[in-house]
Amino acid sequence: MTTPQTSRGKIPRDLENDYTFETAAARRAFLAEQTGVALEHVSQYSFDPSILPGNVEHFTGVAQVPIGIAGPLLVDGEHARGEFYVPMATVEGTLVASYNRGMKMLREAGGVKTTILDDAMQRAPAFVFDDARQARAFGEWLTEHFTEIKQAAEATTRSGRLRGIEQYSASRILFTRFDYTTGDAAGQNLTGKATAAACAWITSNYDGITNFYLESNFATDKKSSQVNILRTRGKRVVAEATLPAALIEKHMHTTGERLFRARQVSNLGGFMSGVNNNGAHSANGIAALFIATGQDAANVAESSAALGFSELLGNGDYYGSITIPSLIVATYGGGTGLATQRECLELLGCYGTGKVRKLAEIVAATVLCGELSLGSAIVAEEWVRAHDRLGRNRP
Amino acid sequence: MTTPQTSRGKIPRDLENDYTFETAAARRAFLAEQTGVALEHVSQYSFDPSILPGNVEHFTGVAQVPIGIAGPLLVDGEHARGEFYVPMATVEGTLVASYNRGMKMLREAGGVKTTILDDAMQRAPAFVFDDARQARAFGEWLTEHFTEIKQAAEATTRSGRLRGIEQYSASRILFTRFDYTTGDAAGQNLTGKATAAACAWITSNYDGITNFYLESNFATDKKSSQVNILRTRGKRVVAEATLPAALIEKHMHTTGERLFRARQVSNLGGFMSGVNNNGAHSANGIAALFIATGQDAANVAESSAALGFSELLGNGDYYGSITIPSLIVATYGGGTGLATQRECLELLGCYGTGKVRKLAEIVAATVLCGELSLGSAIVAEEWVRAHDRLGRNRP
Amino acid sequence: MTTPQTSRGKIPRDLENDYTFETAAARRAFLAEQTGVALEHVSQYSFDPSILPGNVEHFTGVAQVPIGIAGPLLVDGEHARGEFYVPMATVEGTLVASYNRGMKMLREAGGVKTTILDDAMQRAPAFVFDDARQARAFGEWLTEHFTEIKQAAEATTRSGRLRGIEQYSASRILFTRFDYTTGDAAGQNLTGKATAAACAWITSNYDGITNFYLESNFATDKKSSQVNILRTRGKRVVAEATLPAALIEKHMHTTGERLFRARQVSNLGGFMSGVNNNGAHSANGIAALFIATGQDAANVAESSAALGFSELLGNGDYYGSITIPSLIVATYGGGTGLATQRECLELLGCYGTGKVRKLAEIVAATVLCGELSLGSAIVAEEWVRAHDRLGRNRP
Amino acid sequence: MTTPQTSRGKIPRDLENDYTFETAAARRAFLAEQTGVALEHVSQYSFDPSILPGNVEHFTGVAQVPIGIAGPLLVDGEHARGEFYVPMATVEGTLVASYNRGMKMLREAGGVKTTILDDAMQRAPAFVFDDARQARAFGEWLTEHFTEIKQAAEATTRSGRLRGIEQYSASRILFTRFDYTTGDAAGQNLTGKATAAACAWITSNYDGITNFYLESNFATDKKSSQVNILRTRGKRVVAEATLPAALIEKHMHTTGERLFRARQVSNLGGFMSGVNNNGAHSANGIAALFIATGQDAANVAESSAALGFSELLGNGDYYGSITIPSLIVATYGGGTGLATQRECLELLGCYGTGKVRKLAEIVAATVLCGELSLGSAIVAEEWVRAHDRLGRNRP
Repeated sequence: MTTPQTSRGKIPRDLENDYTFETAAARRAFLAEQTGVALEHVSQYSFDPSILPGNVEHFTGVAQVPIGIAGPLLVDGEHARGEFYVPMATVEGTLVASYNRGMKMLREAGGVKTTILDDAMQRAPAFVFDDARQARAFGEWLTEHFTEIKQAAEATTRSGRLRGIEQYSASRILFTRFDYTTGDAAGQNLTGKATAAACAWITSNYDGITNFYLESNFATDKKSSQVNILRTRGKRVVAEATLPAALIEKHMHTTGERLFRARQVSNLGGFMSGVNNNGAHSANGIAALFIATGQDAANVAESSAALGFSELLGNGDYYGSITIPSLIVATYGGGTGLATQRECLELLGCYGTGKVRKLAEIVAATVLCGELSLGSAIVAEEWVRAHDRLGRNRP
Repeated sequence: MTTPQTSRGKIPRDLENDYTFETAAARRAFLAEQTGVALEHVSQYSFDPSILPGNVEHFTGVAQVPIGIAGPLLVDGEHARGEFYVPMATVEGTLVASYNRGMKMLREAGGVKTTILDDAMQRAPAFVFDDARQARAFGEWLTEHFTEIKQAAEATTRSGRLRGIEQYSASRILFTRFDYTTGDAAGQNLTGKATAAACAWITSNYDGITNFYLESNFATDKKSSQVNILRTRGKRVVAEATLPAALIEKHMHTTGERLFRARQVSNLGGFMSGVNNNGAHSANGIAALFIATGQDAANVAESSAALGFSELLGNGDYYGSITIPSLIVATYGGGTGLATQRECLELLGCYGTGKVRKLAEIVAATVLCGELSLGSAIVAEEWVRAHDRLGRNRP
Repeated sequence: MTTPQTSRGKIPRDLENDYTFETAAARRAFLAEQTGVALEHVSQYSFDPSILPGNVEHFTGVAQVPIGIAGPLLVDGEHARGEFYVPMATVEGTLVASYNRGMKMLREAGGVKTTILDDAMQRAPAFVFDDARQARAFGEWLTEHFTEIKQAAEATTRSGRLRGIEQYSASRILFTRFDYTTGDAAGQNLTGKATAAACAWITSNYDGITNFYLESNFATDKKSSQVNILRTRGKRVVAEATLPAALIEKHMHTTGERLFRARQVSNLGGFMSGVNNNGAHSANGIAALFIATGQDAANVAESSAALGFSELLGNGDYYGSITIPSLIVATYGGGTGLATQRECLELLGCYGTGKVRKLAEIVAATVLCGELSLGSAIVAEEWVRAHDRLGRNRP
Repeated sequence: MTTPQTSRGKIPRDLENDYTFETAAARRAFLAEQTGVALEHVSQYSFDPSILPGNVEHFTGVAQVPIGIAGPLLVDGEHARGEFYVPMATVEGTLVASYNRGMKMLREAGGVKTTILDDAMQRAPAFVFDDARQARAFGEWLTEHFTEIKQAAEATTRSGRLRGIEQYSASRILFTRFDYTTGDAAGQNLTGKATAAACAWITSNYDGITNFYLESNFATDKKSSQVNILRTRGKRVVAEATLPAALIEKHMHTTGERLFRARQVSNLGGFMSGVNNNGAHSANGIAALFIATGQDAANVAESSAALGFSELLGNGDYYGSITIPSLIVATYGGGTGLATQRECLELLGCYGTGKVRKLAEIVAATVLCGELSLGSAIVAEEWVRAHDRLGRNRP
């Protein structure tokens, strides 16, 4: 295919200040001229575009994503304590209702207990050598020089701290994971910058590196991976609760035993299908909360990995838990300070510094409510069907 | 933890008509009262809430997500042909710029060739029996009665067609995947309804099913899985292009050989880390396009799986491709008809029926531009570093 | 490293007939001369080397691997029915004893029910094209010409039947799996030959294939893979049994509830660790039976994948099952006709044609006995520890 | 199924000394009586059964597995240096020939460079608590008390050393991996015993453990797993070599470019199929060496995982490497001291203490020879086919 003759034009850009009402309008006018489509709703936004540098380029308007509110969600966390109204930005019907139903039941059950198990954001440079022995020697050197490397990395950041460097070797390559804590930021950018600085120090002080790559599929940013399920990316959070048998019957019209039996089958299904999440649908709650609160929605890729685990207790009560091993959230930086996004964070009492763990706990608690709600819906279906089948009048 | 004494109130709801400006305002007032937070920007939306049933519950306002425009993107597809301006809703700086850079280079290279390889949306009921032999016998019966099952399923839907039923067995359970084509809808709901009807017919006509579950982690909705990478969910799309050596140098300041070598290392890294995507960052472009065009953002979970494949040609040119095995898109239903979402689809010439394959191709083409742009950035970094290292003056 | 000056000699070989006592002795003498090591026990074999062509090259002697006998194993199969004494060739203490213990308990429980769910051996050629559309078009052509391809494949084999061709596409490549039934042979060689013939026909009748490879990691011979777990390689076999509570107590000194709870934890562990087998140790039984009966021991790689599934019944009984999705066994060809190997097959009533499904069932039944035996041992350990912990006297 | 009336008898056993010629003969007689099958070849062994305690129970005779010799294999290792004749016990024709071909070519290329990157054998106890916070607190305690735990563990073993304890958390469970070095033993038994002792100390000194399991699918003994690919089990070994273009042509009748292109396709195939080894067939060489040298053949399950990585150099030379991340070998204990097994270890200069790393290097070097040999065979096929196709005379 060759470039069409009636080639389309270049998107207008103001080299001095591209973040104004005027440049946005100019781009919309340009698009209308080129395509015949007027972006009227897209043009309706309530903030000054001057807040947008660092968030978007070629700003032209906004997507208006409906927000529904679920709650109150009762959280028994270490950082989030009490009841919350949860803003969920979504275009999928029943999503808010389903989470809301789960929140109602879990509130009666005493709330969702949440625990942050780990916290690590990484960049994962790879270093290539002439042979495997040199890669191994470099790995030893890396361990010995951790202090200097940490210093070089941390010189570039106020809030990032280099916790450690994981090493994974194959062939003549050493793959590493530089693990940081990143305060209230999600931290992909600061870890990128810090690791680049660390690698500059490394390559200046170590001979024999044939090639190095700042990233080589070991981080694994915007992707789901076993290494992140095992070793954490962002926050590793658990939400857990025990549902009394009576509550399950009342709210979910089923029993703990049925819930549990269904989990067994879907665990086997997930193991066989090679799924990255043996739970129900954590991505729904996570995506809705991410969009509402200004998180990076692309991180749904890794944040949607989950480990469900349940137990049927002797008395018919049901213990349910979900572990999110790579939940990437921020209450500072990124999209958190934008107009609607900041309001939604404030609604949760999660805007600004010192709040990121609280937000992580609220997300996890929300997810658990959705897991139990959808899990029950599938099982109640079973019950309806079984009833239908068993009760039918066969000639 | 017991329910707090000063328990928070129930979210207001108008049982007659909950989709009005007034009920949305009432909920914001309630939230302000309960939390002290005023949702002023959230309240700024430009459409009538009466369009929202089926998209959200407890509607309270909107998230305003900034949209940047990238392009023109030159697509050599079977459904999308010509140049497009791509709306990307994101809060992450550099994202639009990076995709834009890739689009510019690929436009000069003659555009992105796109191909839809397969199309299938599924529900995955599991059937449990007394023993494995009964599960096996049921599987045979299922194959024999496909016509009747198809009829039962399709009676519930105008656009859904049951293509076939995959069977996966383990223990005394038969896991199935009911594969449909779903027209221009993403189809999760219609396949759910159709499969429930099919299962009602099945359970009415087959004795011996101990339990059945409409879903058991074989679909794998809102999750990433090997079965979907192998067998497709939504659209299976390839975007491919050959970059002349000169263009790589001009736009990316590197060479095809360097790009290729970096791919080898990250392929190995991805294989070892157990990643669901051996490419760079498809989730970025997908999430931004999904939010702009009213797709279900939770589907970033499965849509972000990808298979990158590149070749270095003898003359230094570089063949790059990305295969998205489970891309879930719609141009009809879901959030596609909402105010800004519809405008963005119209901008792409993708609103309404008969357009879903065009949209799938545009998404895939966009993703490839981002892959090559970020891939190059990582490699150019390498080059800078190598230069730095090799050129430094050591005492 | 350069080739050492005092380079070692070439292994002696008789170009006319290399399978004699004399050539084997000549090689041992040569090795003694080169290394100073006399292979005295290795030289003790009881068969005529003339039976060995097709089994080994440079024959020099034998490994004597101890065989222990476990049983009687009571099998309630469709092909294996009744009691069997199972020969297990192993060097690992407790292996035979552990399987024997499981066999004893399951015999009292009424035996192991076995079911073969599927049967398919494959070669997996990949075909490369100029672009994805050509790969897709070729896929359609392949489907249309299945009859001719089948004919070309089957012309090369007496017992192989081409069941179908699976297609998996990515980039400009079509990966295929040619699925055969192979009678009583394991079938890797016959499927290789048949698929090579099929591909010769294909490449002679289809233009535009840029490259083709007879194998490209989709079979996945001698490796474990999700595709084989999903789609079967060799035999897909289930072994299942229900253990009465009293028997578990008597033989295993634990309860079904404890067994079950331990399974839950190890299921979660296996899901998180990314294991190819959520059971206990099927490879032990499989390797021991494979060596004893002349199977290809390298196939332990794929045959050791397994799907465990258990249920705790209301009355305390325990349903246990193991599904082996890629069990590769033969009763004809390969090593099955060698001296001791044939005797061991005869011991099981499994030598020769028409016996391969019987053997597959015996292997699966054996594996289940080992699963329950080791599973119980781990749990009894728990019990001992808990007892120890709870009963201790702390100052 | 009920126990058959004409139930089969109990296998004879001498409670005082079960490891004698007589008891083995008695069992053979019993089997002959029960089944009508005489185990004549099985009875032909050349050692005294009194050496067998700890290797097998119910000893009845031996499997005679043919051994072929490949070599000389030129190894440029840190522990194995020089040329070796490699004993391979197999029943699969062409296996020895194929490895031999690769050894010949790599010898001319200057041999195989081998490097041991890591060394760790583990047991993986799981600890269950009332909630996730308690599991987390226990994890911290574990880290603080490493010295005492190490002491408790090492008190039970002469050669085992506890290197560290990895922690992986989910729900209210802490999964651990106790990593040991184990001298020249494979170490599964000694790590089991040491970890049991460590856990006895732990459960005596820590309150609040609800349940603990000595093993929960995180080790993952006799199974393949991502965690072992990432974190090593047994030895992590690399074998690498650069093949000059001329040698590839001479021995393999193909070119490095073709070899490399085929690798790219099979890498993509393996990534999509979810394989645990993106190489060719390492299990073949590993199984054959394991049986010959008295290793535990069930460990083929995990030892067959591999990471292949190749590069095409500018001059047409070909760099090939294979990384075996979980190679489990011993030169002491287990089956290494048995009659033929010991001779084969001696042939390699690998019997007894201080030799296990040497053996690991020889195994890895052997595997690489097989990878290049089979890889070339597949490609030469391509070449033949392409020639055939392009050269044919179409009417």
